[in-house]
Amino acid sequence: MRPADEASDPFDVLGMGNAIVDVVAHADDALLARLDLQKGAMTLVDEERSAFLYRNMPPGREVSGGSCGNTMAALAALGSRCAYVGRVRDDQLGNVFAHDIRAAGVSFECRPSAVGPATARSLIFVTPDAQRTMQTYLGACVELGPDDVDPMLAGRASITYLEGYLWDRPEAKEACRKAADLCHAAGGRLALTLSDAFCVDRWRAEFVNLVENEVDILFANESEITSLYGVSDFDTALQEVRHHVQFAALTRGAKGSVVVRGDEVHVIEAVRPTRVLDTTGAGDLYAAGFLHALTRGDDLAACGRLASVAAGAIIGQYGARAERPLVEMIAELTGQAGPRSPA
Amino acid sequence: MRPADEASDPFDVLGMGNAIVDVVAHADDALLARLDLQKGAMTLVDEERSAFLYRNMPPGREVSGGSCGNTMAALAALGSRCAYVGRVRDDQLGNVFAHDIRAAGVSFECRPSAVGPATARSLIFVTPDAQRTMQTYLGACVELGPDDVDPMLAGRASITYLEGYLWDRPEAKEACRKAADLCHAAGGRLALTLSDAFCVDRWRAEFVNLVENEVDILFANESEITSLYGVSDFDTALQEVRHHVQFAALTRGAKGSVVVRGDEVHVIEAVRPTRVLDTTGAGDLYAAGFLHALTRGDDLAACGRLASVAAGAIIGQYGARAERPLVEMIAELTGQAGPRSPA
Repeated sequence: MRPADEASDPFDVLGMGNAIVDVVAHADDALLARLDLQKGAMTLVDEERSAFLYRNMPPGREVSGGSCGNTMAALAALGSRCAYVGRVRDDQLGNVFAHDIRAAGVSFECRPSAVGPATARSLIFVTPDAQRTMQTYLGACVELGPDDVDPMLAGRASITYLEGYLWDRPEAKEACRKAADLCHAAGGRLALTLSDAFCVDRWRAEFVNLVENEVDILFANESEITSLYGVSDFDTALQEVRHHVQFAALTRGAKGSVVVRGDEVHVIEAVRPTRVLDTTGAGDLYAAGFLHALTRGDDLAACGRLASVAAGAIIGQYGARAERPLVEMIAELTGQAGPRSPA
Repeated sequence: MRPADEASDPFDVLGMGNAIVDVVAHADDALLARLDLQKGAMTLVDEERSAFLYRNMPPGREVSGGSCGNTMAALAALGSRCAYVGRVRDDQLGNVFAHDIRAAGVSFECRPSAVGPATARSLIFVTPDAQRTMQTYLGACVELGPDDVDPMLAGRASITYLEGYLWDRPEAKEACRKAADLCHAAGGRLALTLSDAFCVDRWRAEFVNLVENEVDILFANESEITSLYGVSDFDTALQEVRHHVQFAALTRGAKGSVVVRGDEVHVIEAVRPTRVLDTTGAGDLYAAGFLHALTRGDDLAACGRLASVAAGAIIGQYGARAERPLVEMIAELTGQAGPRSPA
């Protein structure tokens, strides 16, 4: 954890996303059915629906979340220098989010909103099959806009990483466009995660345009990348995307992942913990492992391997922030001494 | 989980305690030393010290806590009918506490405070040896007083269970005395946990008087019971206490526990999960297992065994509230089908 404290220090990765506190609870399929929840998806809900669902939710635990926030916290734990941009309210859960990401070693200087909706929360129902179903109330995230993107910050990062979820709010999307322009103007690389197949469905044309013209590093799972190109099979989507971005890292759950740079393709095995408890954050930690290896100069296959083992480490616990030092969790999973050279 | 919803339904156990949200973080001994924390103890801190410690704490996760709250949530998960009395503020963490205990199936009707200090939080530093060091800011707990003890509620429980931590506040102590009187007037049994050796040290004379004259069921660990009687060895304390209470359940960590009723003494083995991660809540869950078995009429040895296995289940995870259904966790630990007859 080496935060870049000086105003002139460079960052390896600047991330921007929805700043959310997760409420993680164990639930069964019957409860999902009774509450009419779409299993495996991230669904946006309003304050009233969120309150209703919470009243019907089993006991939970609060863990800082947000896809990009999870990735930044993991990147910092691996040793990358990171900064995060996202909006919370000045309430208890906002304090929790800010504390957790800073304590993880990530620079987080966004001022919390003094008025408006409460800090965002995502109710996450984890079923015994380790699948997670997310019901997200964006709350204070709706305050995120272009003014939150500080040119001094955005020009200091080697990679600027955006989450697709931000496309659901026009002002957040504008913030992304500003960050992308600043990134490229400063010679940095733009990374994007497609976040969610339904989110891709909502903004397909914009995402295709973005991927074809601006994105250098793309993260997507199988349903997201096939949704992006409106195709039914993974290979077709793979052949399409490799012409448009410098790096693509495509995850396929238990089937592992495929990392691509032009003609160079590596199939990466999934790494599984002894017991898979909660798949929340698997994609977020995958991105962290990949980006950490990439910024330190690893070859493509090594980037995919660290990504895979970081994802494997997080799914052996509840929640997407490591409950023990991530480097230790990775070392235990690979039986090796550290994250530098996982199996 | 069968909450006693009707105003006339009896409760198996009514619990009263400090209503606290835990902030659980992984820490090393060097951090404890740097922050001057007394390892293994529960230390009361003021708001300023709590804020200072939080700023220096690693990333955490928020889990409802409070010793008695943990016991009630576990009792309800095992199938006992429970009610809880404790004070939170009407803030986000207060909502979290109230949600979690109700969602666990515990009746909780205390109105949150609309003014005054925020909901209590306990910063829990968990070291790699699974030991927990607690720094508690009592916040809204200081509002708990005799008026919170509803005679209609206190007269409906077979057992009234108090936590020794309450002795640290005069008004809470008065609430305990009122609950004890109501309990005995209604023919119920009074249970007490001594909570913490330093707490016993602060209130020794009062606790001795209480144990000798009012308590029917006493829970204590080795350091608490020896502190109570000012003796250096466990056996001397055991011989002393068995004359004063109907039941004593004395825990000794990895050495197991001893349960006593007059001349009847059973030595109970500790039950250990595959990996001990966090001993927070071990005593709380021990009390839950014991009281659940007692109220359903199990013999003394069986009470001790369910206590031991409930404690074993909780120390394989972080935090004192079960992150999966407690009955399942117990069944896995004992290799049997449910909590009724653990090994």
